[in-house]
Amino acid sequence: MKAFMNEDFLLSNETARRLYHDYAEKMPIIDYHCHINPEEIANDRKFDNITQVWLGGDHYKWRQIRSNGVEEKFITGDAPDREKFQKFAEMLPRAIGNPLYHWTHLELKRYFGYEGTLNGDTAEEIWNLCNAKLQQPDMSARGLIDRSNVKLVATTDDPVDSLEWHQKIKDDPTCKVKVVPAWRPDKAMNLEKEGFAAYIAKLSEASGIAVNSFSAVLEALDARMAFFDSMGCRSADHGLDYVMYQEASNEELEAAFRKALAGEALTLHEIEAYKTAVLIHLGRGYAKYGWVMQLHFGALRNTNTNMFRKIGPDTGYDCISIHPCTDALALVLDALEKTGELPKTIVYSLNPADNQAIDTIIGAFQGAGIRNKIQHGAAWWFNDTKTGMMEQLTSLANLSLLSNFVGMLTDSRSFLSYTRHEYFRRILCNLIGTWVENGEYPADMEFLGQMVQDISYNNTKAYFGFDC
Amino acid sequence: MKAFMNEDFLLSNETARRLYHDYAEKMPIIDYHCHINPEEIANDRKFDNITQVWLGGDHYKWRQIRSNGVEEKFITGDAPDREKFQKFAEMLPRAIGNPLYHWTHLELKRYFGYEGTLNGDTAEEIWNLCNAKLQQPDMSARGLIDRSNVKLVATTDDPVDSLEWHQKIKDDPTCKVKVVPAWRPDKAMNLEKEGFAAYIAKLSEASGIAVNSFSAVLEALDARMAFFDSMGCRSADHGLDYVMYQEASNEELEAAFRKALAGEALTLHEIEAYKTAVLIHLGRGYAKYGWVMQLHFGALRNTNTNMFRKIGPDTGYDCISIHPCTDALALVLDALEKTGELPKTIVYSLNPADNQAIDTIIGAFQGAGIRNKIQHGAAWWFNDTKTGMMEQLTSLANLSLLSNFVGMLTDSRSFLSYTRHEYFRRILCNLIGTWVENGEYPADMEFLGQMVQDISYNNTKAYFGFDC
Amino acid sequence: MKAFMNEDFLLSNETARRLYHDYAEKMPIIDYHCHINPEEIANDRKFDNITQVWLGGDHYKWRQIRSNGVEEKFITGDAPDREKFQKFAEMLPRAIGNPLYHWTHLELKRYFGYEGTLNGDTAEEIWNLCNAKLQQPDMSARGLIDRSNVKLVATTDDPVDSLEWHQKIKDDPTCKVKVVPAWRPDKAMNLEKEGFAAYIAKLSEASGIAVNSFSAVLEALDARMAFFDSMGCRSADHGLDYVMYQEASNEELEAAFRKALAGEALTLHEIEAYKTAVLIHLGRGYAKYGWVMQLHFGALRNTNTNMFRKIGPDTGYDCISIHPCTDALALVLDALEKTGELPKTIVYSLNPADNQAIDTIIGAFQGAGIRNKIQHGAAWWFNDTKTGMMEQLTSLANLSLLSNFVGMLTDSRSFLSYTRHEYFRRILCNLIGTWVENGEYPADMEFLGQMVQDISYNNTKAYFGFDC
Repeated sequence: MKAFMNEDFLLSNETARRLYHDYAEKMPIIDYHCHINPEEIANDRKFDNITQVWLGGDHYKWRQIRSNGVEEKFITGDAPDREKFQKFAEMLPRAIGNPLYHWTHLELKRYFGYEGTLNGDTAEEIWNLCNAKLQQPDMSARGLIDRSNVKLVATTDDPVDSLEWHQKIKDDPTCKVKVVPAWRPDKAMNLEKEGFAAYIAKLSEASGIAVNSFSAVLEALDARMAFFDSMGCRSADHGLDYVMYQEASNEELEAAFRKALAGEALTLHEIEAYKTAVLIHLGRGYAKYGWVMQLHFGALRNTNTNMFRKIGPDTGYDCISIHPCTDALALVLDALEKTGELPKTIVYSLNPADNQAIDTIIGAFQGAGIRNKIQHGAAWWFNDTKTGMMEQLTSLANLSLLSNFVGMLTDSRSFLSYTRHEYFRRILCNLIGTWVENGEYPADMEFLGQMVQDISYNNTKAYFGFDC
Repeated sequence: MKAFMNEDFLLSNETARRLYHDYAEKMPIIDYHCHINPEEIANDRKFDNITQVWLGGDHYKWRQIRSNGVEEKFITGDAPDREKFQKFAEMLPRAIGNPLYHWTHLELKRYFGYEGTLNGDTAEEIWNLCNAKLQQPDMSARGLIDRSNVKLVATTDDPVDSLEWHQKIKDDPTCKVKVVPAWRPDKAMNLEKEGFAAYIAKLSEASGIAVNSFSAVLEALDARMAFFDSMGCRSADHGLDYVMYQEASNEELEAAFRKALAGEALTLHEIEAYKTAVLIHLGRGYAKYGWVMQLHFGALRNTNTNMFRKIGPDTGYDCISIHPCTDALALVLDALEKTGELPKTIVYSLNPADNQAIDTIIGAFQGAGIRNKIQHGAAWWFNDTKTGMMEQLTSLANLSLLSNFVGMLTDSRSFLSYTRHEYFRRILCNLIGTWVENGEYPADMEFLGQMVQDISYNNTKAYFGFDC
Repeated sequence: MKAFMNEDFLLSNETARRLYHDYAEKMPIIDYHCHINPEEIANDRKFDNITQVWLGGDHYKWRQIRSNGVEEKFITGDAPDREKFQKFAEMLPRAIGNPLYHWTHLELKRYFGYEGTLNGDTAEEIWNLCNAKLQQPDMSARGLIDRSNVKLVATTDDPVDSLEWHQKIKDDPTCKVKVVPAWRPDKAMNLEKEGFAAYIAKLSEASGIAVNSFSAVLEALDARMAFFDSMGCRSADHGLDYVMYQEASNEELEAAFRKALAGEALTLHEIEAYKTAVLIHLGRGYAKYGWVMQLHFGALRNTNTNMFRKIGPDTGYDCISIHPCTDALALVLDALEKTGELPKTIVYSLNPADNQAIDTIIGAFQGAGIRNKIQHGAAWWFNDTKTGMMEQLTSLANLSLLSNFVGMLTDSRSFLSYTRHEYFRRILCNLIGTWVENGEYPADMEFLGQMVQDISYNNTKAYFGFDC
């Protein structure tokens, strides 16, 4: 029996262990997609206690505590931080087989030097230990980033954002990590959602263009793209409920925009046609700037109306949607390719049953001069488990070129989540090591070592064109 | 090489063996969802031969015999029981990798003490052995239940059922097992199916309410729910082809009911709106009574028209439907949650590709005071295989809290199927044992032993509130 | 660590090794579905170089080279064959985990006696070695077939085809392999595609029937079926984007045909009704002739418009479609079964998430006298990987009778692809061997040896009724 989460955690054979310890482990991190608030890096935020840093905005953990039958006041409510921590600690041993169990203990080991396990009985000891450690200078936002060997962080930013915190970070010579914005224009596309008109007003203000027509939307977004590019942006990110492709005339698109602004009801065709048109226009812009387009789809959001009204979005009430839409994904990529304006693209679906379809679709739109110009993104969100990662990596290897993969990202709001890169690298090395041990690939350690280093870091740097 | 199905069958490591033999094996059984006929328990049915008890109503077995190219007369027809048994025995060795192969040999071992294998050559010996054993007093319906350590059986009952057999069992002090009804109101919901008007007449009679309107349907069902509750019912069960959610006004619902009763053609919207309205109304009732709502969906029933006409439903012609409907499941749960009337709910889909979506949806509707108030049910029907159970358990562990799971049920018509609980427990212990041996969870045997005992029995008892 | 691809490649235990080496390895091959050009067999084509035989029409390989960022001129363009080979060789080591990596090295070992690995550095050596070997007499089309122990090849042929090359092969006493046509009537069904009218003209000519109505389409196809049957055809094959079932009157079908011929726009209902009607009519014909109906569905074809215009279909731009359509599959089978005219049928979906649904649907339409009259075909195209085959075999074993399976086919355009049968047999033997070693099936080697020989060869011969 292997000891619990020792140095060879998830590494089941000698080749896997050598690939991880001799090659992957030492590589730096590029966290090319996360939800970290740049203000917290700019101000080098310090944390009072472990509940703040661990449970503050982490809806993965909230869901599990709720599943354990705990009252909301101990989760997002006004219970004291110590009591919230206790409820989390009492739930944790019940999360056997859950990635949260592993993430938590990796974080306790790597950041707090704690080698035991968290449960209701050890919560007090760990609370005291962690809170004491959090007072150390290397436990601030930047401290955590630096000790995690993170070279670059790409945040997630709205087109109307001033990027003032990014500017402050740029201007601060004491900040070692490179922080770049990423463009997330969902609000400009979601014409059917509440707040669209208000958002368009903000877009007018930010762009200096009076956004009173569909064509003005595109013009204003173009202006903001130019600004984002000047601020070092290298990628865009779209959160689509599902992928759609509907063509329409400019007149129809202008009419849909006017109806949306006036708060009138829209047909499904109008909604889908408007979104399609904006996406295609933006995709062409990404190609022009050499940005990477990230498409995230398959999420069913804010499913619990009561809780959405009480505590808003991104609080643990989103789910996997299995609406089949990969056929439309092929149409979107083809529409951009037709005019030679398909940007580098990374595709992520929340439905793991889409893996194989995605891996065949990316293969139909590759481009000369870039290895895997179209990528299948790392197992996303609910799939960010040992199972989910194994399945994504296996499908990618079966149907595309695993060696070209840009690898892991955290997608996280927390400064402690960089251990997810470790988790991913261990799983990657174990998968490859197992193939080699089984005689399915030659034991050329130099070549394989380069491969896992590429997937861990080098591919990402080259693909995005990051200067770090 | 391990011997065929020895005491460590499916247990691949020491931790798994200890968890099973020291903890899970000894736990009693609560069979909280099955299709056993309560009359057979009330009368303590005896069996003449092994064909009767094994092949009598078991469409799992019928399908496989048919797949082997056997004529229907040897399956559901008038061939002698001995010949039917022979055809089954000849097919069985060809069912390598099929759960039927394991179930059959578990049943031969546990109930008949036979340690060999069944095939065409051994059929005569086994026929004689089993038929002799079936004459023993502990091989009657109640005998089999008692020696299987079953504490409680929940049957499946129509709202119009008088529950007379349940009353007889209650009144019989010699019956050791507790038998409770479960509410299955499909016929009251399936307004588009043949026989709806006749069913409504029965509902009028059973409830004493003249069911001549949609609102009277609800009233009559309410009356029957009260009766079922008084008879010890703790759960409802819905067999939905797919989950739907369509809102409609009361006028529309009344009109749909009138059309259905008159045998007029209904629109899809009318059908779905009526079913939605009845389901939501009933769900509120379940919440009031503290019942558990079970939703089974994803079945394509009676696909072979010729055979349906010849031998009716539940004869082995149902299939998995992959109509995507989990988005609608979230809408149904939300509609009930909005008014605070969401009952405890167990969700089962026949499409194994729904696992992950379901495990995220249940996480969005949990409730304070109950561990996993919303549950993902055990791998159902065609998924009741080693693969299917591993996938359901793994998905549940990845996305929810496996420790809170209410575990296995037989869903069976046979008194020999309790070995499916053994099959499940072995797979569960092996999964957990493998995690521990790989260093993915601490080897705290006391805690893990409690966990497998909870999933085997304790969680079910607490969740349903069974008094057994 | 096992040596790379040694004699026990993919065989992880002693039972697996015995099953493969003592039983499966020696069995001949029936390649019952491929895309080999019969002209090349008739003329016993010789190959100038390895690029011709390996990269000539192999869009599996083209996709991967494109994914590596290579320019199209080195793939399907006018670059010299040696340079094309270099690009392939440089890509190959990056295809870790991809079946192409294994197929390539199996082919190098079995046909060229090369035991090393192909990469950019060894390309020159291998180029020279292979080209020299290709000059040997046993490396022609027939030579490769014979040394692969192939007894029968079923090609893929259009109803209008004269089958002249098949006749030439029949008439040639020096050709050892049996070559039979298979009926692929897609063009007669695809009334909505470009070229339909031109195709109908060809059908008129081939059949000698003036095809000026829907009923004449059926009559002409009937005439061609009779001719194909006289030429030894034993199977039909349909490439459906998705399975559909739409009923319509004869008048509607005639009207749809007239519109299609006139190039007028068709409604979705018209398209689906016409295709349904032709499929059902043909299915009845297959039943009459005792042919096997193969249904392939789930492909999204020619997704990249630019490349389709440049280099046409079947060039590596097809993808998996996940349009859910297995419910319709049940309707098609039922429509044929209703009148007792359901032929032997093999179902293949490109979406691996369809496996379980398919395995339940086939179980509802089996027939007396034929083992698994309805079959779930071997893991198809993009699923023809170790993972895909394991999943198809496991699902089939879980839900049907694996022993009755007709097993592997190449679906290939290449004469070197027979090693895919070896790949399949190793995976099959390993799966079965692992069950036995784990105590899940008795270690009756004689019975199991027969089983793997049946799945490798005997079942196919009996099922199709091939005389070879």
